[in-house]
Amino acid sequence: MVRSRTVELEGHIIDSGMMQRCFGVVMDLDGEFEVEEFRVGKHKDEESYARMTVSADDEETVRSILHELHQNGAHVPNPSDVALKPAPEDQVVPHGFYSTTNHPTQVRYDGEWLPVENIEMDCAVVIDPDERRAATKVLNAIEEGDLVVTDESGVRVAPPERPRGGGGPFGFMQGGVSSERPSESLIREIGETIAETKENGGKVLAVVGPALIHSGAGDDLARLVREGYIDMLSAGNGFAVHDIERGRYGTSLGMDIETLEHPRKGHKHHIYTISEVIRAGGIAAAVEDGLIEDGVMYECVENDVPYVLAGSIRDDGPLPDTITDAVEAQNAVREQAHEADLVLMLSTLLHSVAVGNCLPSTTRVVCVDINPATVTQLLDRGSAQAIGMVTDVGTFVPTLAETVLERASSN
Amino acid sequence: MVRSRTVELEGHIIDSGMMQRCFGVVMDLDGEFEVEEFRVGKHKDEESYARMTVSADDEETVRSILHELHQNGAHVPNPSDVALKPAPEDQVVPHGFYSTTNHPTQVRYDGEWLPVENIEMDCAVVIDPDERRAATKVLNAIEEGDLVVTDESGVRVAPPERPRGGGGPFGFMQGGVSSERPSESLIREIGETIAETKENGGKVLAVVGPALIHSGAGDDLARLVREGYIDMLSAGNGFAVHDIERGRYGTSLGMDIETLEHPRKGHKHHIYTISEVIRAGGIAAAVEDGLIEDGVMYECVENDVPYVLAGSIRDDGPLPDTITDAVEAQNAVREQAHEADLVLMLSTLLHSVAVGNCLPSTTRVVCVDINPATVTQLLDRGSAQAIGMVTDVGTFVPTLAETVLERASSN
Amino acid sequence: MVRSRTVELEGHIIDSGMMQRCFGVVMDLDGEFEVEEFRVGKHKDEESYARMTVSADDEETVRSILHELHQNGAHVPNPSDVALKPAPEDQVVPHGFYSTTNHPTQVRYDGEWLPVENIEMDCAVVIDPDERRAATKVLNAIEEGDLVVTDESGVRVAPPERPRGGGGPFGFMQGGVSSERPSESLIREIGETIAETKENGGKVLAVVGPALIHSGAGDDLARLVREGYIDMLSAGNGFAVHDIERGRYGTSLGMDIETLEHPRKGHKHHIYTISEVIRAGGIAAAVEDGLIEDGVMYECVENDVPYVLAGSIRDDGPLPDTITDAVEAQNAVREQAHEADLVLMLSTLLHSVAVGNCLPSTTRVVCVDINPATVTQLLDRGSAQAIGMVTDVGTFVPTLAETVLERASSN
Amino acid sequence: MVRSRTVELEGHIIDSGMMQRCFGVVMDLDGEFEVEEFRVGKHKDEESYARMTVSADDEETVRSILHELHQNGAHVPNPSDVALKPAPEDQVVPHGFYSTTNHPTQVRYDGEWLPVENIEMDCAVVIDPDERRAATKVLNAIEEGDLVVTDESGVRVAPPERPRGGGGPFGFMQGGVSSERPSESLIREIGETIAETKENGGKVLAVVGPALIHSGAGDDLARLVREGYIDMLSAGNGFAVHDIERGRYGTSLGMDIETLEHPRKGHKHHIYTISEVIRAGGIAAAVEDGLIEDGVMYECVENDVPYVLAGSIRDDGPLPDTITDAVEAQNAVREQAHEADLVLMLSTLLHSVAVGNCLPSTTRVVCVDINPATVTQLLDRGSAQAIGMVTDVGTFVPTLAETVLERASSN
Repeated sequence: MVRSRTVELEGHIIDSGMMQRCFGVVMDLDGEFEVEEFRVGKHKDEESYARMTVSADDEETVRSILHELHQNGAHVPNPSDVALKPAPEDQVVPHGFYSTTNHPTQVRYDGEWLPVENIEMDCAVVIDPDERRAATKVLNAIEEGDLVVTDESGVRVAPPERPRGGGGPFGFMQGGVSSERPSESLIREIGETIAETKENGGKVLAVVGPALIHSGAGDDLARLVREGYIDMLSAGNGFAVHDIERGRYGTSLGMDIETLEHPRKGHKHHIYTISEVIRAGGIAAAVEDGLIEDGVMYECVENDVPYVLAGSIRDDGPLPDTITDAVEAQNAVREQAHEADLVLMLSTLLHSVAVGNCLPSTTRVVCVDINPATVTQLLDRGSAQAIGMVTDVGTFVPTLAETVLERASSN
Repeated sequence: MVRSRTVELEGHIIDSGMMQRCFGVVMDLDGEFEVEEFRVGKHKDEESYARMTVSADDEETVRSILHELHQNGAHVPNPSDVALKPAPEDQVVPHGFYSTTNHPTQVRYDGEWLPVENIEMDCAVVIDPDERRAATKVLNAIEEGDLVVTDESGVRVAPPERPRGGGGPFGFMQGGVSSERPSESLIREIGETIAETKENGGKVLAVVGPALIHSGAGDDLARLVREGYIDMLSAGNGFAVHDIERGRYGTSLGMDIETLEHPRKGHKHHIYTISEVIRAGGIAAAVEDGLIEDGVMYECVENDVPYVLAGSIRDDGPLPDTITDAVEAQNAVREQAHEADLVLMLSTLLHSVAVGNCLPSTTRVVCVDINPATVTQLLDRGSAQAIGMVTDVGTFVPTLAETVLERASSN
Repeated sequence: MVRSRTVELEGHIIDSGMMQRCFGVVMDLDGEFEVEEFRVGKHKDEESYARMTVSADDEETVRSILHELHQNGAHVPNPSDVALKPAPEDQVVPHGFYSTTNHPTQVRYDGEWLPVENIEMDCAVVIDPDERRAATKVLNAIEEGDLVVTDESGVRVAPPERPRGGGGPFGFMQGGVSSERPSESLIREIGETIAETKENGGKVLAVVGPALIHSGAGDDLARLVREGYIDMLSAGNGFAVHDIERGRYGTSLGMDIETLEHPRKGHKHHIYTISEVIRAGGIAAAVEDGLIEDGVMYECVENDVPYVLAGSIRDDGPLPDTITDAVEAQNAVREQAHEADLVLMLSTLLHSVAVGNCLPSTTRVVCVDINPATVTQLLDRGSAQAIGMVTDVGTFVPTLAETVLERASSN
Repeated sequence: MVRSRTVELEGHIIDSGMMQRCFGVVMDLDGEFEVEEFRVGKHKDEESYARMTVSADDEETVRSILHELHQNGAHVPNPSDVALKPAPEDQVVPHGFYSTTNHPTQVRYDGEWLPVENIEMDCAVVIDPDERRAATKVLNAIEEGDLVVTDESGVRVAPPERPRGGGGPFGFMQGGVSSERPSESLIREIGETIAETKENGGKVLAVVGPALIHSGAGDDLARLVREGYIDMLSAGNGFAVHDIERGRYGTSLGMDIETLEHPRKGHKHHIYTISEVIRAGGIAAAVEDGLIEDGVMYECVENDVPYVLAGSIRDDGPLPDTITDAVEAQNAVREQAHEADLVLMLSTLLHSVAVGNCLPSTTRVVCVDINPATVTQLLDRGSAQAIGMVTDVGTFVPTLAETVLERASSN
């Protein structure tokens, strides 16, 4: 049975972002809204007003929506007084206590709106009936018998509005998104997205850095390529050399990937690898000659997954496949970017920026790096739908591969 | 003379943030708007429509505003065809060329809307009149004679809308704020804000970490306290000990601040400092005894600037002034936070989080740290007006002090 | 059959660290050394000299050792001329080519020591027999027929010496340790270390931060506690609250750990959790009452694993178990630190520093954090045997638990 | 008058690094040493022994040296008992108290060596004469009358030795270098080094990233070029474009450097800048045409300072001066690197790595970046003399320029 409730918004509800957040809340929580009245402020100093009915399939959902709308400044018409319950013990809140935001707040007590003094987030609100005053209390200040506000009726929140006429150097902040999320669950959701993209005939572009190989995740990426989950690869000369070196010598930049031991002759492996591929005439020729027998590049060649290796001034060699001219390499990257429906940016700021520069805002992006600044920088580049994850690519890729391949085998 | 122009917005203009950004653009660029018509989509699948007149004092400003509105999806009614100019040379754009966003874009050519193929930001748009097609070209692909779109008339941009019905794990991104700003200019603006806060009778709370002393900025902070620009100080035991040690021995954690030489007996200075202040009975008593003769804590005592030193499990000593009980210390911090009008958070995540937890969203916050993750985390805590600056507190504070004090002497 | 070889070291071989590194090389590579002659420079301007015989069980090992000693400046007595081989093709090195360090280098050609010009690491050395000159060549500069130095005989490397009489502000660098290691393999080795510590009757102290719970690794840490691999726990109030909240509500700071959905009433869960534990009288009482049924704290109570929860000014509540006095809490941490044989510092800088301050240099330390600066700072605090790992604790702990528990079940 | 003292070292004094550190201490503190006896352990299980006389110009210096040697494990022959003083008050240490390291420590009391229990750094050592036991006490545990060890005589410290036969995954740590240094003082020292390099006829290579321009430090770098302190410049296309854009439009990537205002038409400036320079035929031609009138690139052209602009796949344009082929660009960078005597790496990881790859270990390097991971990575690349500084290049370069130019004018 559909349940519904009416809410009002008042003030500079558009430029403060309040209206946008309220619409977002309803949609995110699977509700519906019907705007009954909307008067927009015609000038920047004129306030706006909206009244809408919010509905959902069950009372629980409606309440969740109402709660969120309330925190964002919406309020119900014809408010009643606040409901009060005494604190059962010192430092214990009554069930259903109202937990504050850090925005200016009022509570309706005995027909009168009282400002909540010392507003601060995650506190309870306690009413002093004699003084007719309301104030926040942190948990450890609660005393038995304190009259604590419960539920949201009779409570009004007023999120700050964008300062009229410029705020000087101060930015107008609109509530950030917390970034801490459980790693394994999120990886599973990314796995779902890859699988769905493939099922819908979309193309997945993996943009990868050498840290992926150093951290031991090469085999798992190779499996994803072999099983058809990666349609294009974008990387640098270093990535390909480390991947091939690992296959030939079991080392990456000279360190044994399995035993962690440093054979101490290792740096030569890197140069030998390049030297041999040059002699063979390139990666595909080296695969054909049996020189390269596994790894990410091997799977790309065997499964006709096109790759772009873009050169840089930090390269050894480079391999014959590496496009050393920056303009030519950028054009090759551009072509990949335009074809992709989902882009996985895996621990490479450099190649990811190059790809990101060429992406329309409608392409989905997943960005994984251990450096939060890298993730922030890449998410800022303009995709409208993006996931950023600050994690270790050496554990991310194995978990991702497991998820995707398990899902496939269970279908 | 006031100039004006009419623009329209269509689509899910509220929940995509388009409307909010457009209002913000007009206000930021010192324009005025008058909403002439506004039809809000009543349901989540119904689009909205707005038409407004934008005006400003001069044609230049109106054009700047129009440009920004355009980039955010607004368009003029009754559009004309695009204006085209031939590229004067290979790799050279004609004056006034239209520079793309990364959003889906259309251009009106010969009465018909053509989609711009391969959309990508910061490109030119070139029309092929024979094929009646439009496509982006990067600068180095421009050929002499290419018909390049100039100005914005006849161009339509469609920023992505929030996906209806949840986007899975993907966040809906709405255009980040670039953070690279010239350091010295921004510091000057922060100095202005401090001075104005004081002139308006407001209170400035400095929340400071020990890195401020290690980096040699103690003298400059002490001057700001002495000259009356800091009304309250919030710190930990370590900050106070390093500050006093520097005054007594010229070292901070044993290293000579001036000569950079490590007297190699240094760590004892730290313990001696605490031991002596304990013997004197506290910081104020040690100032009175002549044991402490300069530094930040000295100036606080001499100028009656109240300070809270909150204890932690990492402290040596601690000093008698340090509040070792966490609940008591939090209450002292809370009181400071509630009184402050402007909070300077200077290279301390820990104390800044504690202060931030107690702040209403209406208090202005300046957050300075060398670690971008710290700045991001602090700005996310809920102030509506905030400045974040990733810089070295060892050069920030001297520059700030110079600015504030120069301004004072020139008034 | 034991094979051996004699090498010499000359110069300021002690203060440059050359001697130390050479001894280290032999031990790391399972060789033996016998010092035959050692003349130490009596004054700082007098050079030292060492001659030693290096031996190992097989020729392969001896050669690995010799290679490393050579790179660190050791050389064989009575050197022969370098061996030269022509490059087989352009950009291809002959087998066994000598790969340069970046230290000043000489090669013995036709009885004469030639300096290698333009020294640079990871290059080949090519001899011009007409000019009697030797120079580095990068791979892509190699031309067919170039006379390339192979093997190490006839090559002398001279690592820089510590400048006599102070280097000004410049630090004397002695060769860093590369930090990129395959994540999963290293976690397995850490698992081995935990298991061995337990088998030898040692005690494992886990120092943990709230990110461990947010990132979804709580269940796996709980298993490690239950199975007896963790003997003591050191954390803050926040860790315990998040862990208990997750058990009671399936959320951490209000976000659902499994579905990633934000119930939007979430922040109250945090306060409720504290409120209920306060009402029960503490964590152990709440476990007994059936209020807490799983999680890390539950397993600690059930398995008599002592925990220290140290308070801070950022705490909500706090829980009755939290020690709010900083001095008292530090003493409790100190006691744990003194008892531990292996300390796991898991994504908490604050508690790790507090523990690290109390550790003797002989206690082993494993430090895991996603922030490389945190890992560096903790490793600098003075343990003589330490592992630092920059990774995501949300994938680290599950992988570690799996390793340890698999090992146990296979024994 | 020269004062001297004899010390002994015993144990695995070479591979633990003890001997090296002791030699370093004497040299750093301007002392002299004379090794009187040195017996090296012939095998890895045989200990070594050294006895040396340490001397300096005054008693104060000798004592400083002795203190440091002592902390590193050296001890005096024929030790006396420890000196004890009673603590004058609770929580107050007597003058000259012995401050502990975190290494295993013994004290000689009444002719007998007692182990110090619960060793932990920065504590006092208290003797219980009845129990004949010694233990550490933190400051707040000191009670009036406690018998506290003073001075170092009668105290023995044993820094841990490298484990014989491999330490598993654990690295052997040998005491890190603290990195917190006062910013302004260190910049002055770097300024001195530049000036001295120039006075000695050396060459200074500046490797610079675009953040230098964004952060407003372009003018100051331009002055350093104009005044002859920079001999070569290594950068990318982006650096040059931002620098020229700033000169032409007062913006960098569209933002006004002085007013911080975003003209909102800004991104076109970037493309225009490139377009115009292409039209002129390159930077030098654009300077000659009067198109470029100031900035870093302008000063390079006017003062014949050679520059290398290396291309990348992230470039717009690029400028005609940019070397787009990676191999060719690397060779140009290599030439610069081989000529340099001092390299300043200023907020660019990418170009710094490319330059660092080509440097001999004897070239001095200064590396400045706001990201500590970048500084660490660059310092690890192999220069024997290096300064790393984690600071804001936007305040670093102005302070550096001021220092260098002031010094010049005062000479």
